[in-house]
Amino acid sequence: MIKAVKLKPNASPLEISQQDISNFLNAPDGILWVSLENSNDSEINSVLSNIFQFHHLTVEDCLSVGYQTPKVDDFGKYIFIIANAVKPNGGFKNLETIELNIFLGDNYIVTCFTDEHMPCVETTWQRLERDERMATRGVDFLCHAILDTLVDEYMPLLDQMDEEVEWLEDQVLANPKKETLERLLTLKHSVMSLRRVISPQREFINRLSRDEFPQVGKISRIYFRDIYDHLVRIQDLSESIRDIVSGAVDIYLNSTSLRLNEVMKALTVVSTIFLPLTFLAGVYGMNFKYFPELNWQFGYPILWGIFFIIVIGMLAFFKKRNWF
Amino acid sequence: MIKAVKLKPNASPLEISQQDISNFLNAPDGILWVSLENSNDSEINSVLSNIFQFHHLTVEDCLSVGYQTPKVDDFGKYIFIIANAVKPNGGFKNLETIELNIFLGDNYIVTCFTDEHMPCVETTWQRLERDERMATRGVDFLCHAILDTLVDEYMPLLDQMDEEVEWLEDQVLANPKKETLERLLTLKHSVMSLRRVISPQREFINRLSRDEFPQVGKISRIYFRDIYDHLVRIQDLSESIRDIVSGAVDIYLNSTSLRLNEVMKALTVVSTIFLPLTFLAGVYGMNFKYFPELNWQFGYPILWGIFFIIVIGMLAFFKKRNWF
Amino acid sequence: MIKAVKLKPNASPLEISQQDISNFLNAPDGILWVSLENSNDSEINSVLSNIFQFHHLTVEDCLSVGYQTPKVDDFGKYIFIIANAVKPNGGFKNLETIELNIFLGDNYIVTCFTDEHMPCVETTWQRLERDERMATRGVDFLCHAILDTLVDEYMPLLDQMDEEVEWLEDQVLANPKKETLERLLTLKHSVMSLRRVISPQREFINRLSRDEFPQVGKISRIYFRDIYDHLVRIQDLSESIRDIVSGAVDIYLNSTSLRLNEVMKALTVVSTIFLPLTFLAGVYGMNFKYFPELNWQFGYPILWGIFFIIVIGMLAFFKKRNWF
Amino acid sequence: MIKAVKLKPNASPLEISQQDISNFLNAPDGILWVSLENSNDSEINSVLSNIFQFHHLTVEDCLSVGYQTPKVDDFGKYIFIIANAVKPNGGFKNLETIELNIFLGDNYIVTCFTDEHMPCVETTWQRLERDERMATRGVDFLCHAILDTLVDEYMPLLDQMDEEVEWLEDQVLANPKKETLERLLTLKHSVMSLRRVISPQREFINRLSRDEFPQVGKISRIYFRDIYDHLVRIQDLSESIRDIVSGAVDIYLNSTSLRLNEVMKALTVVSTIFLPLTFLAGVYGMNFKYFPELNWQFGYPILWGIFFIIVIGMLAFFKKRNWF
Amino acid sequence: MIKAVKLKPNASPLEISQQDISNFLNAPDGILWVSLENSNDSEINSVLSNIFQFHHLTVEDCLSVGYQTPKVDDFGKYIFIIANAVKPNGGFKNLETIELNIFLGDNYIVTCFTDEHMPCVETTWQRLERDERMATRGVDFLCHAILDTLVDEYMPLLDQMDEEVEWLEDQVLANPKKETLERLLTLKHSVMSLRRVISPQREFINRLSRDEFPQVGKISRIYFRDIYDHLVRIQDLSESIRDIVSGAVDIYLNSTSLRLNEVMKALTVVSTIFLPLTFLAGVYGMNFKYFPELNWQFGYPILWGIFFIIVIGMLAFFKKRNWF
Repeated sequence: MIKAVKLKPNASPLEISQQDISNFLNAPDGILWVSLENSNDSEINSVLSNIFQFHHLTVEDCLSVGYQTPKVDDFGKYIFIIANAVKPNGGFKNLETIELNIFLGDNYIVTCFTDEHMPCVETTWQRLERDERMATRGVDFLCHAILDTLVDEYMPLLDQMDEEVEWLEDQVLANPKKETLERLLTLKHSVMSLRRVISPQREFINRLSRDEFPQVGKISRIYFRDIYDHLVRIQDLSESIRDIVSGAVDIYLNSTSLRLNEVMKALTVVSTIFLPLTFLAGVYGMNFKYFPELNWQFGYPILWGIFFIIVIGMLAFFKKRNWF
Repeated sequence: MIKAVKLKPNASPLEISQQDISNFLNAPDGILWVSLENSNDSEINSVLSNIFQFHHLTVEDCLSVGYQTPKVDDFGKYIFIIANAVKPNGGFKNLETIELNIFLGDNYIVTCFTDEHMPCVETTWQRLERDERMATRGVDFLCHAILDTLVDEYMPLLDQMDEEVEWLEDQVLANPKKETLERLLTLKHSVMSLRRVISPQREFINRLSRDEFPQVGKISRIYFRDIYDHLVRIQDLSESIRDIVSGAVDIYLNSTSLRLNEVMKALTVVSTIFLPLTFLAGVYGMNFKYFPELNWQFGYPILWGIFFIIVIGMLAFFKKRNWF
Repeated sequence: MIKAVKLKPNASPLEISQQDISNFLNAPDGILWVSLENSNDSEINSVLSNIFQFHHLTVEDCLSVGYQTPKVDDFGKYIFIIANAVKPNGGFKNLETIELNIFLGDNYIVTCFTDEHMPCVETTWQRLERDERMATRGVDFLCHAILDTLVDEYMPLLDQMDEEVEWLEDQVLANPKKETLERLLTLKHSVMSLRRVISPQREFINRLSRDEFPQVGKISRIYFRDIYDHLVRIQDLSESIRDIVSGAVDIYLNSTSLRLNEVMKALTVVSTIFLPLTFLAGVYGMNFKYFPELNWQFGYPILWGIFFIIVIGMLAFFKKRNWF
Repeated sequence: MIKAVKLKPNASPLEISQQDISNFLNAPDGILWVSLENSNDSEINSVLSNIFQFHHLTVEDCLSVGYQTPKVDDFGKYIFIIANAVKPNGGFKNLETIELNIFLGDNYIVTCFTDEHMPCVETTWQRLERDERMATRGVDFLCHAILDTLVDEYMPLLDQMDEEVEWLEDQVLANPKKETLERLLTLKHSVMSLRRVISPQREFINRLSRDEFPQVGKISRIYFRDIYDHLVRIQDLSESIRDIVSGAVDIYLNSTSLRLNEVMKALTVVSTIFLPLTFLAGVYGMNFKYFPELNWQFGYPILWGIFFIIVIGMLAFFKKRNWF
Repeated sequence: MIKAVKLKPNASPLEISQQDISNFLNAPDGILWVSLENSNDSEINSVLSNIFQFHHLTVEDCLSVGYQTPKVDDFGKYIFIIANAVKPNGGFKNLETIELNIFLGDNYIVTCFTDEHMPCVETTWQRLERDERMATRGVDFLCHAILDTLVDEYMPLLDQMDEEVEWLEDQVLANPKKETLERLLTLKHSVMSLRRVISPQREFINRLSRDEFPQVGKISRIYFRDIYDHLVRIQDLSESIRDIVSGAVDIYLNSTSLRLNEVMKALTVVSTIFLPLTFLAGVYGMNFKYFPELNWQFGYPILWGIFFIIVIGMLAFFKKRNWF
């Protein structure tokens, strides 16, 4: 689907058809936003290659399926941005990213994605009517608005992760199970995936906030700096989550080892008490003809006394060694 | 709560009301300190946006709840600082930070925090009367005084951590318990949180101590360098604590494993001595009709002799293998 | 085998013999590609040393067997590139690389390899007829085409690794065996080898995409930048695989430890139940003359009752301790 | 204690009293060395603040107790150095550092320490008489002489550590005990403390060896470079010790695990041999009325044969499984 | 031993005596190589200090025993190089390095070592007759020849390590023993030592290959770049060996743990089968007067049936739990 809109200060946004894009492109004033949504190959080719005549490598990047590393490339008359949004409603367990391509020229911006939905673009499109800054501030502000929304979408994910890690940390102390470990490892996995997506994004937002590109004005750079700060905070949070996860895995693994210790002690206590007793009982069950003790009158109660002394002695020994 | 004060050399500090701030702001001499304490949204907006007309992104940073990464941003006429103080009376176990925002202009400083108390601001406010350098040295010295107090508040925390880690290290050698491990992990956690707060703070203090910002004069930079050295020392200390914690965890985990070894040896010694004896006793408890040994006169004492030889032999074998 | 071809815009590629290379080398227009395939020492010497008079160190690099670190060296009139392709049909388990040497001059390119096949060179050679850009765009584009194909050959390898790691991750949760660990370690090994090959390659492609070498024109740099992005993605993917492998190894090792725990619990439960019972049975198998219980009428059923109570008590104790 | 000396080429060192320092300070030729040893607060204040009028932050650094990170600060007319010497006779187990403060001006050097002894200062003071280079080469050479001695004092410490680690490595292979581990961990601890002291020292010596400070002449820089090389070697040595310690800890921990294995095998061999035998002996100790085997004439010797077969079979099985 | 030789293009090398060195040093053409081999303190002093008047710090470096970090120092008229060769015939287990000092002037080179043999110097000395490039190319080429030979001597060591690691990797899978671990750890140790020697060497060769020193001409820099590439490859190889070693240690440690598991399972299976059986046999060995089962005609065969059922049931349970 191809949507296009012309924005002028003090005027309502004017939706225009695909055919009129080239006409409006060269208009002296106002800014043009062309949005290719859930777009197929022919749409991408007709708009990006034919109308805008973007470099064919960037068009191939828009077409290609599969993860692309976020980046910004300078092509002189325009800059080309690849950003990665999180898939809405995915949750952190199946962390998937969807690719957003942005071409930023002097008086136009082209956004392009092949997925069904890209909330950050749709939200910004709806703000066009309400927020007149969109028309007055130029395309760089518009670009900032889209990327800001895109970055904000990461926060709910991190909040979910934060809740999960706190619950898991409690679990690991109170009632560690194999499932707890698996959830910890899944979470660690997600956090590390997230970091790999965030890190190059932070990098290119940083470049946009410096004075590297003529398409980004001095005033807008402060706004990109603001996005950058958000991303730094997201990365800090994700590192903090990763640390707690690692700590929890440590406690978990140690609790397994401690439990083994406890079980072994119980086994050892029972075995070392009853093995000597059983031996003695076995001795007096022997059938030797000549066996003086068996004929003693108090042989049996005396043996119970010996049993008792052995048990007490053993327990004292274990107590001394701290095996209870 | 909004407090404001006008400072001039050779004059008592003059407390002024909110309404007069804009008048005093443009006065040619003296410096102005506006302090927003435990402030709500309307106070922040009325002072920061309306009177001082700071960039709305910085105002949003002051309003927003939640951890903000410490930083310094240059807005030409003023610089904007986010610093993180430790929550007073929190202790190191629940290490929480409270955010302090500082706007530093040529002849004014605005401090802003939304928490109930910010000791470093309150202490510096009380020094205004006593310490005349506050009035004579300019806003950059005032800013240094606040940040210096803020950094000094970290020291008691580190001292607590240091004491804790020494106690824990002794415990781990003398009497390792599960609780010891948990405290070690909690401490490790706190140290790592602390490092994440200190590190960006060190970074921006370093920038203030170099000649990057016109608001910080050449003479004051040496003072900011001094704060920087404090932060380096705090970071060194926290790394040292982290190392001792890691070492203590190693000893702890190994002591668990050593104890398991000890228990296993006891079990093995007892089992391998008594299992053969019990077998022999069992043999002579059998009821075979034809059983020559049972009729021997010295069968029973001979068997005790065999028992004795087995025990001695086993003990010698264990001794040789170092199992005692 | 020595192959050579002269390319001119708007003309079919002209295959030329070894003898004519020097003549065509100094021709004012068109570009020359000399390809030494599966070449022996005398071929390499005659072409590289005698005709092109390349530096003898580079010729030695072409001759030498064994892994050479990928690099690019500037010799003024030409640049010398060592790239590493993956051996076709090798699979990721026996990851082997084959060396491709490229000399890139102003109007000629010389490729040289000593292995039997180098798919990236062969594919590009076949494109000469079809793709007229090869003749019109200059030697730098030709060089890009070869290196692009070389890098693309890494992708099937990574896909194989990706499939393997997913299968192994499932295995490790469902049915961990020693063989699973070995395959995990093999995979980890391969990923790390791959990273060591990719990393210097990324480095020199990056240098080619900047304006360091006069042989690479401004337009071609964008294409080398595209290869660079591919390599970044490959490295990201390989890091991701390595992380999953590490996670899977963690789960595996822990599952071993958990299984040991389970076995130990079973042993302990059985031992601690039956050792006391066996002791009691041994007691009443003794042959003391004076042994009152043996004469009780209900001695035998009472003892069964005691057995029963002991078993129930033990099981309750184990249940309470969560040993089932 | 305050000591001061005036040095001139071709003249004996002239000891001067505290009162005359300011007079000699402004003398056109010769150099002045003021040494504050084991000095108290009033001495420090009177000399550093009153006579030399050093910046009050540096004076506070001289006064303050506790570890200060080594550094060099430039104050225009002089540079301020904090160095850390090792406490003499401390040994590596209680690695303690003592702080040496140096003020280096154009024609004077002031050294200051609050501890009882600072061998590097005392040794250099004694060299004044013997070594005429001290007077002819300027204050920067004098400063080099002090710091060179300070750095050399680290070497005996490293030699001690080296001996300890070699002894421990042998111990860990021959006769690993809990005490061995503790000594290993202590050593690791000391090495890491040492590295934290050496690293910033290396850093500031490096700065002194470059042309950053006008107080350090071109010829002296080579000498500071020499100290720098010493520090690099010390750091290399300490890293090497740390690596051997880590390796020894690995061997130790594994030897524990191997020993557990050995103990378990012994237990298993004895248990699995005697449990079946004991069972069989138990069977033929039963008192069933109808029990044909008991009446067989060769029942008893046949059973011994069965016992024998079981033992041989078990041992063969264990041998096959490599359990001996 | 002091050897000296004068090299001129188109002339045989002219060996000269120690006394004539100073005369030849100032000769306008040709180059001078002075080689101090297995030299004692007086030789070093007389040549380096008296004849060449090198800086006394460099002479001290030549004299001093013990490991010196490889480096290059610029003294204006000459550069001073410390390189580390491997001790010939040492093998990788006792990796020892011997120090080679090189002074490189405009028309002379002085090499100095205190060990008995330094193959790289001796080999190059013998090449003087055969290889006329030594005389025509200048002292920088001569220096390159020595260092190239020195670096090549590392390769056999790495080949030995490579063979060892492959053999150990097979061993660890087939038949892991304590000795295997020790050899793995020794190898790891050697690799890490090697890396510490290679790394600074790579660093200074890199500096020589750039245009930092006037003594190294533009043409020779390519040759030093070639040595640099060799060192990069050696470092890559050593990292690869270290990775395989780490992987093998992982397999080893896990195989210990797996074996413990196996032993424990055997113990548990035997114990849990025979403990209940022995209990039952014990029960029917009791001597109660009133004991109905003993009088049953088929009591004994019925009990064998029960024994049989218990064994089958246990084995089925173990099978289900995958304990075989």
